[in-house]
Amino acid sequence: MRIDCLQYANWSEKIFRQMREGGLDAIHVTIAYHENFRETVLNFEQWNGWFEQFPHLITKGLTTADIDLARKTNRTAIFFGFQNPSPIEDDIGLVEIVHTLGARFMQLTYNNQSLLATGCYEHNDTGITRMGKQVIKEMNRVGLVVDMSHSADKSTIEAAEFSCRPIVISHANPHQWFPALRNKKNSVIQAVVEHGGMIGFSLYPHHLKDKSECSLASFCEMIARAAEQYGTQNIGIGSDLCQDQPDSIVEWMRVGRWTKEVDYGEGSKDQPGFPAMPKWFRDNRDFNNLEEGLGAAGFNKTEIDNILGMNWYHFYNNNFGPIQ
Amino acid sequence: MRIDCLQYANWSEKIFRQMREGGLDAIHVTIAYHENFRETVLNFEQWNGWFEQFPHLITKGLTTADIDLARKTNRTAIFFGFQNPSPIEDDIGLVEIVHTLGARFMQLTYNNQSLLATGCYEHNDTGITRMGKQVIKEMNRVGLVVDMSHSADKSTIEAAEFSCRPIVISHANPHQWFPALRNKKNSVIQAVVEHGGMIGFSLYPHHLKDKSECSLASFCEMIARAAEQYGTQNIGIGSDLCQDQPDSIVEWMRVGRWTKEVDYGEGSKDQPGFPAMPKWFRDNRDFNNLEEGLGAAGFNKTEIDNILGMNWYHFYNNNFGPIQ
Repeated sequence: MRIDCLQYANWSEKIFRQMREGGLDAIHVTIAYHENFRETVLNFEQWNGWFEQFPHLITKGLTTADIDLARKTNRTAIFFGFQNPSPIEDDIGLVEIVHTLGARFMQLTYNNQSLLATGCYEHNDTGITRMGKQVIKEMNRVGLVVDMSHSADKSTIEAAEFSCRPIVISHANPHQWFPALRNKKNSVIQAVVEHGGMIGFSLYPHHLKDKSECSLASFCEMIARAAEQYGTQNIGIGSDLCQDQPDSIVEWMRVGRWTKEVDYGEGSKDQPGFPAMPKWFRDNRDFNNLEEGLGAAGFNKTEIDNILGMNWYHFYNNNFGPIQ
Repeated sequence: MRIDCLQYANWSEKIFRQMREGGLDAIHVTIAYHENFRETVLNFEQWNGWFEQFPHLITKGLTTADIDLARKTNRTAIFFGFQNPSPIEDDIGLVEIVHTLGARFMQLTYNNQSLLATGCYEHNDTGITRMGKQVIKEMNRVGLVVDMSHSADKSTIEAAEFSCRPIVISHANPHQWFPALRNKKNSVIQAVVEHGGMIGFSLYPHHLKDKSECSLASFCEMIARAAEQYGTQNIGIGSDLCQDQPDSIVEWMRVGRWTKEVDYGEGSKDQPGFPAMPKWFRDNRDFNNLEEGLGAAGFNKTEIDNILGMNWYHFYNNNFGPIQ
């Protein structure tokens, strides 16, 4: 089983074919960064077009039954998520509407303060806001998973504790391995996994020790340490693959419509664009390298299958439907 | 089995309870008259609120499995429809989106010319437009049923012929029984039923012979003649019940935002508001009267069950999913 719990590529038939070559059974794809509800609907429409155009390669994912079907028919199930709560605007009723349309993950913040919580780039962390608590309860009710990948520490810990269902950090790495601002401190990951949540390890070079030069061995050693610390069942992959995107897209991710100034986010004036991916993870086909690397780091076959897919499968299975 | 294929009441717990008293297993309710997509979403949200508030009385209807569940649990399944294509605006991609949200019927026009076809109050009938043909194909593909209740004759006949799946006139009566502008001529009904479609008989007084004074016997005799002419399997009820609505609502139905002048629609200057319902059909509880009336008109038990519900059940069963 192979599931990648975060990608935002410049989607094309080529990439859909590479998903098959890499044996991806399911991928959580980002469908909104800064879009409001109406704009997000246009993105759902665009995916409907791809499902109609490439029915032999991809299929819409709503539950794990869609992953089972995808495996049986040699396709990849596509699950949707938002990196920002902008699609629900200021309307809690939109939580159920976006879930009905297929959304399965929603980040409560994207770097900045939102109506719901604080992003990891803010100076002051409010924790979960009044509306944030109401929205988490509603997300719990319908089966929309709280994702805190781009959130601040206190907000993340509070979300893990307040949510009555497990939450995730879909794409980030441990801060102790590489102290990027977006990587997560031990206390934060601990709060998430203690409540049954998951962390998906990121291949985005700004999150990697030695960035683009990070070795496969170093990445897999990091996973081995995390498995010891957080449990082999609470970890997976959230590659943050942004394949074939032009640099203008990373700029838009960072500034959206909230500023007229340049914001370099995880980049810098000298390196404003997308960094080069490590040689051993260029695209979906390189999940085969991850499998080898995890083997070399001492994981057995079952553990590798869990980390590369089954852990997410079980998580999806328990968290995408209405609360029981 | 009892299914009413058109209501637009001022929804309340009282009305939901009356649905149960009347033994209604399913109702097709109007969720948009003139609303654009974004406004229609607010109406879906309002219904989500009612489903959460009254789970013991109503349940969302997407397929006939929801009717089966509703029967088993003593509730009414609520199916959604639009009286106008305004929710899809000028965007064919919204057809699948509104179907995903739960829409199962869409009228191509509401009295006036639309982007898709001509309404019954227009002087000239274009038939199905270029966009209309594309939208019918898309509705056929996803399982959104074409409803021509408020459409002009030529447009309706063309829709019946062009659509690769059966279409409906969800709420109207035969013109030969009572020549209201909204009632349907023989050739129009014939075109619909010849292609496997259905007509739902309306209890709206403007569609009834002798209007509010129409007798139950006259209404059921009309059904008996229609059964002979169009087949007992192609007919049902679409009561057009607008219970508890203030007169301002019928005015809004007629003028929406398309005119600043008064339009009386089926009413008149002397009777601009909602006409009084016939004494034997005040609300959902009076389905019991319909059953008696149909018996008196000579229908046997099975025929009555088909006309009051099973015909719609079979139609819903065949037409709400993706094309096979």
